[in-house]
Amino acid sequence: MNGILQDLRIVELSAFVAAPLGGMTMSQMGADVIRIDPIGGGIDYARWPVTRAGASLYWAGLNKAKRSLALALDKPEGRDIARAVITAPGAGGGILLTNLPPLRGLDFTTLRASRGDLIMLRLTGNRDGSAAVDYTVNAASGFPLVTGAVGGAPVNHVLPAWDIAAGLYLATGLLAAERHRSRTGQGQEVVAALSDVMLATVGNLGYIGDVQINGTARPAIGNDLYGSFGRDFATADGRRVMIIALTRRQWRAIGDATGLGERLAMIGPMMDVDLDTEAGRYEARDAIGALLARWCANHTLDEVRQAFAGTGVLWGHFQDFLQLVRGDPRCSEANPLFAAVDQPGIGRYLMPGLPLDFSAEPRRPPGPAPLLGEHTDAVLGEVLGLSSAEIGRLHDERIVAGPDGR
Amino acid sequence: MNGILQDLRIVELSAFVAAPLGGMTMSQMGADVIRIDPIGGGIDYARWPVTRAGASLYWAGLNKAKRSLALALDKPEGRDIARAVITAPGAGGGILLTNLPPLRGLDFTTLRASRGDLIMLRLTGNRDGSAAVDYTVNAASGFPLVTGAVGGAPVNHVLPAWDIAAGLYLATGLLAAERHRSRTGQGQEVVAALSDVMLATVGNLGYIGDVQINGTARPAIGNDLYGSFGRDFATADGRRVMIIALTRRQWRAIGDATGLGERLAMIGPMMDVDLDTEAGRYEARDAIGALLARWCANHTLDEVRQAFAGTGVLWGHFQDFLQLVRGDPRCSEANPLFAAVDQPGIGRYLMPGLPLDFSAEPRRPPGPAPLLGEHTDAVLGEVLGLSSAEIGRLHDERIVAGPDGR
Repeated sequence: MNGILQDLRIVELSAFVAAPLGGMTMSQMGADVIRIDPIGGGIDYARWPVTRAGASLYWAGLNKAKRSLALALDKPEGRDIARAVITAPGAGGGILLTNLPPLRGLDFTTLRASRGDLIMLRLTGNRDGSAAVDYTVNAASGFPLVTGAVGGAPVNHVLPAWDIAAGLYLATGLLAAERHRSRTGQGQEVVAALSDVMLATVGNLGYIGDVQINGTARPAIGNDLYGSFGRDFATADGRRVMIIALTRRQWRAIGDATGLGERLAMIGPMMDVDLDTEAGRYEARDAIGALLARWCANHTLDEVRQAFAGTGVLWGHFQDFLQLVRGDPRCSEANPLFAAVDQPGIGRYLMPGLPLDFSAEPRRPPGPAPLLGEHTDAVLGEVLGLSSAEIGRLHDERIVAGPDGR
Repeated sequence: MNGILQDLRIVELSAFVAAPLGGMTMSQMGADVIRIDPIGGGIDYARWPVTRAGASLYWAGLNKAKRSLALALDKPEGRDIARAVITAPGAGGGILLTNLPPLRGLDFTTLRASRGDLIMLRLTGNRDGSAAVDYTVNAASGFPLVTGAVGGAPVNHVLPAWDIAAGLYLATGLLAAERHRSRTGQGQEVVAALSDVMLATVGNLGYIGDVQINGTARPAIGNDLYGSFGRDFATADGRRVMIIALTRRQWRAIGDATGLGERLAMIGPMMDVDLDTEAGRYEARDAIGALLARWCANHTLDEVRQAFAGTGVLWGHFQDFLQLVRGDPRCSEANPLFAAVDQPGIGRYLMPGLPLDFSAEPRRPPGPAPLLGEHTDAVLGEVLGLSSAEIGRLHDERIVAGPDGR
């Protein structure tokens, strides 16, 4: 966390990854991000992974450093409160971030009638408004058919990569729209479709041009790098490593570090390619791989690490989540990205902050996620100026709820 | 494209995906993004996919709507020109975005001596400055070991998801730092490590907490959704579809649309789970899948599409890059995201713009990528105020080059 956006107030009506990540990116830069959820929690409130008691580590992870306001969004008075919070005055307020279908009275036109300079960021599934999620967008992207073993069935990515990209596009769009408003006084609606995030990315990486200009498509090549040299290898002790040569320097380093330089050089004339080019190394990748596979099979991971240390070889070893969390020093408090934080309802564990270090704004420890409704009374008092008596009535009538669910 | 950032001037010293995508996100919002490359091109200039003539569709895809300045960065005078362009006066200038190791004289301290309010965004591999790329960071992330078939070798994602996330974090950081500068006059250095982007994401999704609180890690479950119901199925005509039920409504829709509602309901008592919960559907996923697999195997993709149309079933079909580009109407000029653009050196093909629609800033057609050095003379004249004679001398001395490589 830092304080670079501490004058902004952003309201989130959100679920799952994309909009919550966009909002959290703002809260981790100090913005007051108020996530509004229905009393009892939204559709992502119990999303896995969960603790044995059923508390969602996922929800806690994606809502850090936000405030939580729990409202009866199924009742007109609950939605009136949401509208009042979204459109409350203040130069840094009037910003709504959402990836949910608009509730009655919480659409852009209605909200703008309450605050003319409203900024609303809205993520849809498809551009036509039809539903799409990371899993369906990914299926359409072409990537699952070139992932995994050659000739196999489609393989889905496990990282929700389209949602993550969409959330960060929303964060970028939010700051661009707020910049525009601070210069012109003008609000606006910014809309992104998750499927467009996918389509733009496929195009950005050259795969649309490949089909339209070349009439071809990137083949499935397992873990091999496309158009260069890189793949995974098994070590003598049953681990696996990635070894990569994108640049000539990295290529030379592999030969030097393994002692295979002369043998690797024989592959050039043998395959009739220039191994100093990426295309040449790609074409000769199976021959290169044959030599490196034998070398790796004769070395343990520790021996590989020693052989490559300080040589400029670009490589890394595979590890699972347990090995990452328990054994990788980058995933510990030795890394300023992290701090152990007490998460109410869950316990104390390692939480990441924002992966950006601002030299003009010192890093602060990550803030935990709120309990659902933890800030209901504070938000109603501070943002709407409601009295304790009014807030009490709203609780009694079950229009709002606090962290005890009432 | 739109014009929302048209008063910004950003210089890029970059390669591959992350920083180029961050810069392109700015150029697609109208910023003047000047990518500086060595004469002859940087290390990503021939990256695949390429045309038969060797022009990089990848490079073109990630550098759209930028200007290109080609300099002899191996010579002091070339680096002096780079420094002058980066630190040239102007309220919207003085912003550098890089993911390359700093060249002599182009580090933050030296640049800030030329322009006190410089903003420099810098992506490193690891936080300690050691090299890391998407492939090595991904190997360490834990995801390849839970991707693909259960019990198989690690499977790398093909989408460079960590690079994409890093590029969009840089874009967000750039706008946050520029906002700070416009309010305080203060520049700064913003640094991100690619490995921290990965680590933060693993934490954000709950997987660090899962290990530290539960002592467990998400298992490999192939294409099954974790903690809910969703997986892929083969159709009668050899296609594959994803069918997903995140919400109760989506779950009920599957039963209604397939006519399997009563049979699916039998699974609840049979497996002793509540199928109206995500955890219940996850536990019973193999039984649910058995019924749906038989149904899908008896229906062609077209029949599945007809059965699910308008029902609220959340589903999608798998397609490869050829099918996406040639057959999906979302990937065509029917989608305002796209326009057919003449890319110099390559030809005319479908290019995506920014996947964000700003209501206050109309979408403009995507701009093509520059030829290498296409804007050398224009930038030297406009930004540095050099005369034609001075520019001619720089060409003669091979300090700069234009689109003809000279």
